[in-house]
Amino acid sequence: MKRIAFLNSRYIEFKNAKIHIEDRGLQFSDSVYEVVPFYNYNLIDFDFHFLRLKFSLKQLNIKYYPKKIYLNNIFKKLIKINNLKSGIIYLQVTRGVQDRDHTYKNNLKPNVIIYLQKKLLNITLKKIKAKKAITYNDLRWKRRDIKSVSLLANVIAKKEASKKNAYEAILIDNNKITEATSSNVWIVKNKTLITHPANSDILKGVTREAIKKIIKDNKLKFQEKTFTKNQLYKADEVFITSSTSFVTPIIKIDSKFINNGKIGNISSQLALIYSNLFLN
Amino acid sequence: MKRIAFLNSRYIEFKNAKIHIEDRGLQFSDSVYEVVPFYNYNLIDFDFHFLRLKFSLKQLNIKYYPKKIYLNNIFKKLIKINNLKSGIIYLQVTRGVQDRDHTYKNNLKPNVIIYLQKKLLNITLKKIKAKKAITYNDLRWKRRDIKSVSLLANVIAKKEASKKNAYEAILIDNNKITEATSSNVWIVKNKTLITHPANSDILKGVTREAIKKIIKDNKLKFQEKTFTKNQLYKADEVFITSSTSFVTPIIKIDSKFINNGKIGNISSQLALIYSNLFLN
Repeated sequence: MKRIAFLNSRYIEFKNAKIHIEDRGLQFSDSVYEVVPFYNYNLIDFDFHFLRLKFSLKQLNIKYYPKKIYLNNIFKKLIKINNLKSGIIYLQVTRGVQDRDHTYKNNLKPNVIIYLQKKLLNITLKKIKAKKAITYNDLRWKRRDIKSVSLLANVIAKKEASKKNAYEAILIDNNKITEATSSNVWIVKNKTLITHPANSDILKGVTREAIKKIIKDNKLKFQEKTFTKNQLYKADEVFITSSTSFVTPIIKIDSKFINNGKIGNISSQLALIYSNLFLN
Repeated sequence: MKRIAFLNSRYIEFKNAKIHIEDRGLQFSDSVYEVVPFYNYNLIDFDFHFLRLKFSLKQLNIKYYPKKIYLNNIFKKLIKINNLKSGIIYLQVTRGVQDRDHTYKNNLKPNVIIYLQKKLLNITLKKIKAKKAITYNDLRWKRRDIKSVSLLANVIAKKEASKKNAYEAILIDNNKITEATSSNVWIVKNKTLITHPANSDILKGVTREAIKKIIKDNKLKFQEKTFTKNQLYKADEVFITSSTSFVTPIIKIDSKFINNGKIGNISSQLALIYSNLFLN
């Protein structure tokens, strides 16, 4: 069966899905994206992703105004024609093609790319998988709240993690933990959940928002505040959240074990509650 | 006449020059570039550009090792078949195409894109053109010494300049002037030339290096050190250097005139000496 992608208004063979060399996404990382997971043919947290997409486009003044139902229909159609039960939808919108110039024109036609990737989601009713992480210097730009393809700093950090057989790199900016290369970072200390405030220093994760709701519904203690590398190492529990990692406990960071290398109760509980939303 | 670009090993029509949607340059700004000016069919400062390209590739561990003569021949051939006398050569190397994943594989085949742009170079034997600039917050990442396409912060700042009818945006990081969106910034104070040191906070400009040589040859006073916005406003002269701007005097910044809105002697002198190298 042929793999099919959506490019602008057309469904085409994935291998033929190409964009011009003067696309501004390629030349200036002038482009935003979203990764939407789907499980059992159902989109997960699509409303949140859609809102964030609109936010990113607006921040960069990229003139693309899709209706939610329009994207939803494309996603559903791609899932159907590619016959994929679970995985992720990758959606990228670039500002469009222009004679190369830092200054963009206002009337460009955005390029819209949508395709599916088969991916094992860390979602389960049984025992959740735990992972190792490293810490790394946060080299990113200052508008991390925009989900742009300006991801080179993330790529460098993630490669370092990979070299050390770790799943993620937790980023440190000015001695504060911001987030990880493609997930938000949480610690649990004395039964209080702590994560970095959602400002321009981090991306406001969709799963982060979903977990916040679960925390509230379950009346758990929660604080949005920054924490240091030392506080990270000494946390009772550490976990990360993202649209593909869902809730993933981190049981070793650099050479330090967290909770003696065991998955903590609160991480485990949140992972199961969140997974449960999509498994029934 | 058809416009021709070079894509990997082929010369093809510019309008058909496309890359796959999973190119890492497009998805992660995992890519480096160079802009080489040419005048009267001659490449300007190609050796410097070649060295910097090698530096950028090495820093990102992108496995592309062209010989200088190989690129030189492609450049010359493009200039010939496109029948262009003066302009710029745009060269971009991406890490290549891969199933989307922050972690890159080590064996990818880089995509190499080369094409020409017609451009008026600020090069002259007579009166050099002066420009206006604005100041803007430096939002860029922390490895600005790598000439990567991680340029979204530059794009935002340049657009602000354009909205205010200014030629460039001079970037300020932590109250220090780093550089401008696509050029280095210099001030003259009491006949001493000052520019930001070449560390990871700025791109080591090719024209910056060429001007340093002229300064040395002409025994002018020179310091590589940081300076503040206030020192910028109060400078006797301000100019920027880049591969397309060459030496361009800045006579107004935000609402402040520099040197009463007139081109300074040292800026003018350097512009003419540098232009002279290519005009004979």
